Amino acid sequence: MAYAAAMADQKNLQIRLASRPTGRATTDNFTIAPGPVPSPGDGQVLIRTQYLSLDPYMRGRMSDAPSYAPPVEVGGLMVGGTVGEVVESNDPGLKPGDVVLAYTGWQQYGVQKGATVRKLDPGRAPVTTALGVLGMPGFTAYAGLTQIGRPKAGETVAVAAASGPVGATVGQLAKILGARTVGIAGGPEKVAYLSEIGFDEAIDHRAGDLHAQLAAATPDGIDVYFENVGGHVWDAVFPRLNPFARVPVCGLVAMYNEPGLPAGPDRTPALMSAILRKRLTLRGFIQSEFVADLLGEFLERAAPWVRDGSLKYREDIVDGLENAPEAFLGMLDGKNFGKLLIRVS
Amino acid sequence: MAYAAAMADQKNLQIRLASRPTGRATTDNFTIAPGPVPSPGDGQVLIRTQYLSLDPYMRGRMSDAPSYAPPVEVGGLMVGGTVGEVVESNDPGLKPGDVVLAYTGWQQYGVQKGATVRKLDPGRAPVTTALGVLGMPGFTAYAGLTQIGRPKAGETVAVAAASGPVGATVGQLAKILGARTVGIAGGPEKVAYLSEIGFDEAIDHRAGDLHAQLAAATPDGIDVYFENVGGHVWDAVFPRLNPFARVPVCGLVAMYNEPGLPAGPDRTPALMSAILRKRLTLRGFIQSEFVADLLGEFLERAAPWVRDGSLKYREDIVDGLENAPEAFLGMLDGKNFGKLLIRVS
Repeated sequence: MAYAAAMADQKNLQIRLASRPTGRATTDNFTIAPGPVPSPGDGQVLIRTQYLSLDPYMRGRMSDAPSYAPPVEVGGLMVGGTVGEVVESNDPGLKPGDVVLAYTGWQQYGVQKGATVRKLDPGRAPVTTALGVLGMPGFTAYAGLTQIGRPKAGETVAVAAASGPVGATVGQLAKILGARTVGIAGGPEKVAYLSEIGFDEAIDHRAGDLHAQLAAATPDGIDVYFENVGGHVWDAVFPRLNPFARVPVCGLVAMYNEPGLPAGPDRTPALMSAILRKRLTLRGFIQSEFVADLLGEFLERAAPWVRDGSLKYREDIVDGLENAPEAFLGMLDGKNFGKLLIRVS
Repeated sequence: MAYAAAMADQKNLQIRLASRPTGRATTDNFTIAPGPVPSPGDGQVLIRTQYLSLDPYMRGRMSDAPSYAPPVEVGGLMVGGTVGEVVESNDPGLKPGDVVLAYTGWQQYGVQKGATVRKLDPGRAPVTTALGVLGMPGFTAYAGLTQIGRPKAGETVAVAAASGPVGATVGQLAKILGARTVGIAGGPEKVAYLSEIGFDEAIDHRAGDLHAQLAAATPDGIDVYFENVGGHVWDAVFPRLNPFARVPVCGLVAMYNEPGLPAGPDRTPALMSAILRKRLTLRGFIQSEFVADLLGEFLERAAPWVRDGSLKYREDIVDGLENAPEAFLGMLDGKNFGKLLIRVS
């Protein structure tokens, strides 16, 4: 109470949804303005945001198309995962100074039920990893790969946005599982990074004929394609899929900014026909459906890999909450390099 | 030897692929001509065809588009499952008079390794059921439903071509598994039959607005859609799919006669987006991949259901091998009513 009271005339910078994008999102779709520092209610804690995670799924929340989660209301606070410091607590299990994983969104201060945050142990791994390789993106990779992709040793696993927090983890986990890994990313710097973290093949989708590059990199075809991009990468991957290939579909970032359907012909029958002929599995998923069964196992296995360096990660940290909209829009265009985080305080 | 020798100047009517269809198949794609009665080699049996099964997959074999099975060569014998009588045997396990399930194709006499036919017990079930409800179509229903669709009690299962041997079995098995079942078929007679065999809802796709009919019949959406048709039925089903719906894809008969892709827009992104948002599973399959693990179980469970009438089936028997092409083409247009068989002798 003391802290919130003292802060009552302080500013809490917040970023809200100003309007829904039609097609490409722009900075005009956001407003940045100070609000009050909220006061924690019963069982709640007041958290000062240290890091805000920016992730592709947020583009979906800006739209009111039917989805697995309700959209952000126009005028509403942009949602998002955060790491922050407890500055006031009405939860006996948490005290000021504790660092927690929360979901307080695009703002400097937020309140949340203490029971719904996760206290982080900075000795276990750097706290920012709770938003990346050991957080939602890393768990997305783990769940999709182990529950849907299920690569067997010697099979070929391909992933796009492969220098990003999901893709990079997919590649390294697939390698741990004994698969041959093919990463796709944009630009020579990212491609060099893919080799550095152990991808067997690294492809630059900006460097000319993607179909030909992919054919050369996958002489035995593709058994698992971890789909987080869509668009022209999918077009190139699709004919390389082997019989019985599995396609966990966790994102389609290339499509998020598209306002409507592309011109014809309608290729749906070709897709359905390939699903039949090749006995493909396409399975959409959201990591949350696997949390109850699998998150504990993931953290137990992956945290030591992160500590000993066998599971590498890269962060792209931008300073200042006010820079979040531009950084977010850049991410949708593939401009970030590694897990995109905003350092808020 | 004796039988084959005596038959050497007898005719063996055979139907061969005259040319590959471009788009719609016609009777011109077939030739009917007598050939010699073959002589069984070592370990082989000579079989006189009693019944020839006509199935949608055969349309695929007429085409040389990439598929899970090699095409019939132009000039080659049309392939197909048969029930026939052994008339000469070089396999000690089989003797003249035995009735077997074989794969001797569109002809009156064929030879096959004794080890690759299955002797039928006419006391267990009528022998024609080995081509239908207890054969490949019935097993397709069983495998797709139990291995991919996995309906839970109370869920809604929809299937098209529901008066056919696959669809009718899907509906009845889903009912046995406790699901609510919605069958789609063409014409009032077939729709009446769906109710007769226990579908909870029966829809006539020729009777006007399929979207509206389906919406009325599936107030709680669709959890499993057993896809064996494609085309406009899929278009109507697709928006009714619930989160986590499963779509076993075993056939796309509405597309088999289509020469190319339909006009745009390209709806692939909408399909991929729905797979993601609704966390759908689409899985192509061919029953053969499940035979080793599951066929025994299926026959053990389903044969008693057929005998006691709890798993009903309907046959559409056409007399005379020479009528096979026309009957087959009619089936692709949905003109058969029940499992289509040719009585050859």
